Amino acid sequence: MPASASAAPSPDSRSAPDRTPASGPSSSGPTGALALAVDVGGTKVEAALVDSEARLVPGSRHRAPTGASSSSDEIADAVGRVIDETLTTLPPGSPLVGAGVGSAGPISAEHGTVSPLNLAAWRGFPLAGLVASRAGLDRAVLRLDGLCILLAEHWVGALQGCRTAMGMVVSTGVGGGLLVEGRLVGGRTGNAGHIGQLQILTRPDDSTGLDLDLTLENVASGPHIVAWARRQGFAGSTGEELAAAGRAGDPIARAAIRRSARAVGEGIASACALVDLEAVAIGGGFSKVSDDYVDLVQAAVDDVAPLSTIRGVRVVRSALSDEAPLIGAAGLIHRADLLP
Amino acid sequence: MPASASAAPSPDSRSAPDRTPASGPSSSGPTGALALAVDVGGTKVEAALVDSEARLVPGSRHRAPTGASSSSDEIADAVGRVIDETLTTLPPGSPLVGAGVGSAGPISAEHGTVSPLNLAAWRGFPLAGLVASRAGLDRAVLRLDGLCILLAEHWVGALQGCRTAMGMVVSTGVGGGLLVEGRLVGGRTGNAGHIGQLQILTRPDDSTGLDLDLTLENVASGPHIVAWARRQGFAGSTGEELAAAGRAGDPIARAAIRRSARAVGEGIASACALVDLEAVAIGGGFSKVSDDYVDLVQAAVDDVAPLSTIRGVRVVRSALSDEAPLIGAAGLIHRADLLP
Repeated sequence: MPASASAAPSPDSRSAPDRTPASGPSSSGPTGALALAVDVGGTKVEAALVDSEARLVPGSRHRAPTGASSSSDEIADAVGRVIDETLTTLPPGSPLVGAGVGSAGPISAEHGTVSPLNLAAWRGFPLAGLVASRAGLDRAVLRLDGLCILLAEHWVGALQGCRTAMGMVVSTGVGGGLLVEGRLVGGRTGNAGHIGQLQILTRPDDSTGLDLDLTLENVASGPHIVAWARRQGFAGSTGEELAAAGRAGDPIARAAIRRSARAVGEGIASACALVDLEAVAIGGGFSKVSDDYVDLVQAAVDDVAPLSTIRGVRVVRSALSDEAPLIGAAGLIHRADLLP
Repeated sequence: MPASASAAPSPDSRSAPDRTPASGPSSSGPTGALALAVDVGGTKVEAALVDSEARLVPGSRHRAPTGASSSSDEIADAVGRVIDETLTTLPPGSPLVGAGVGSAGPISAEHGTVSPLNLAAWRGFPLAGLVASRAGLDRAVLRLDGLCILLAEHWVGALQGCRTAMGMVVSTGVGGGLLVEGRLVGGRTGNAGHIGQLQILTRPDDSTGLDLDLTLENVASGPHIVAWARRQGFAGSTGEELAAAGRAGDPIARAAIRRSARAVGEGIASACALVDLEAVAIGGGFSKVSDDYVDLVQAAVDDVAPLSTIRGVRVVRSALSDEAPLIGAAGLIHRADLLP
């Protein structure tokens, strides 16, 4: 994927400017208490320290690969390793105020366990307990990664001030989180926001015949839309190649980009019929496939909206860098007032 | 439609037993303050007085036809007439504590206006103001009819005690309302809960070819499913005839009933992916088309659920009679604590 969206501020603009760990409150160092933030996905785990103004402590961000074929112990080791590395950057005299964990779903918020679709070795794995014990804390707060993204956008990103909104990621998968009437939505098990699992109708430019088991993710995600482009004759095999071909005006690449945006727009229209959203912020690697991706999504929403009121939803680009999942995980601690 | 569902209590069991207007607090009369409840739909408008325990004052319920081809004045006259008739039954010395109005959507909760899809003469019509002035009140509280149904189920029906749930109606149309984390959901404009506008995939028994503009309502509602059955060779033309044929074992009627339930199940599965619901209560005339309709919906949810967590949602029959829309409209006053 392209490295960053043109509309997004550079990561540095939101990081504390001091590149050495701060030793106490100062205008250039971390502000207030620090939270440990952990983000677990199908390809990698990341951890960082985040202050009460949503800034990552410079040097505290670490990552390790997870991987679909890894064993349970291998994934747990990776999680433990990035936490250890991150905690070595904790400024002396700065106690952790808590640990927040975002994870690919499904999860159980109540039990602190995770069963990520793309980490087959983890089914009902006690991730919250692992993080807490590794960090020397009594507990860690676990929520769906999509909810963390939404929390970050609502806290310091593109959805500040909204009461009813959705944060979305279009990347290897498609996920999201919901804010309703000013509160984050967990739902019965903590898995609200799985917009990638909405059913989607295929539309005009589908020349491959109709698949009757289509979810938004299975149409619009990076890997799925690249596979679709290849079936139309596209020679590349990555999202980056699709982005480059699209910029060069390749008609198949442009059709693929439009197809993904169209499906995302259809999903948002359905979400708006159900929840009547004010705004949707879209981030994630594939959303940067073209400068007009978010505009194409807005146009699709307006085109397919089954109710005129739905056309009032604002579709905007995420205002955060790829730090959003970590900022949101830290928000589980710093903005506990928003939690379901 | 059959008059009542086997699982639903009879209307009388929830009405105050005294059939004459009560003149004051008593064990058999209305309890506490009375609210004026008004429900406006595409075919009729109803009004009643409802006490603080969700019981209709006997004799206070009145209705008049509305109709898709009526003029704006004709519909307004019908609304005014049922309010007048209902207010004549107000017990002496019982002041109204307020007026709650449920309406077919879209609505604007903020402006108190309605633009019901099937009342073409009303676009941005100031319904809340009309009800308030006719009732001699400063204001009336207007919300979507689906939200009122959900409120009624949560207050005294099948969804008592739930934190995140949906109330649904499957009838001439398909609508609903959402409860999220203990609060009713209005959304940006007050139109949350329009589940009938979710996109739905057609499935196996569709022998008519694939329509790419399918919403849940356009597949599952009574009129649409009867039309589908007729295209398969069904000779009847009403939901009642379809119900009778289904009971007699007619295979086309059974296929039509299964098709409607399947679509409703698909819509619920998508709603659960997004909001992670605990329970869904289904009411409305067409939901009574067969004794097993709600069971068929639950089976469809379990079958199509794209996430294992979704299979935990409970699909139940409404516990309320056809008084639910009026009870919910009164709940806008008596249970104002739940309002968005």
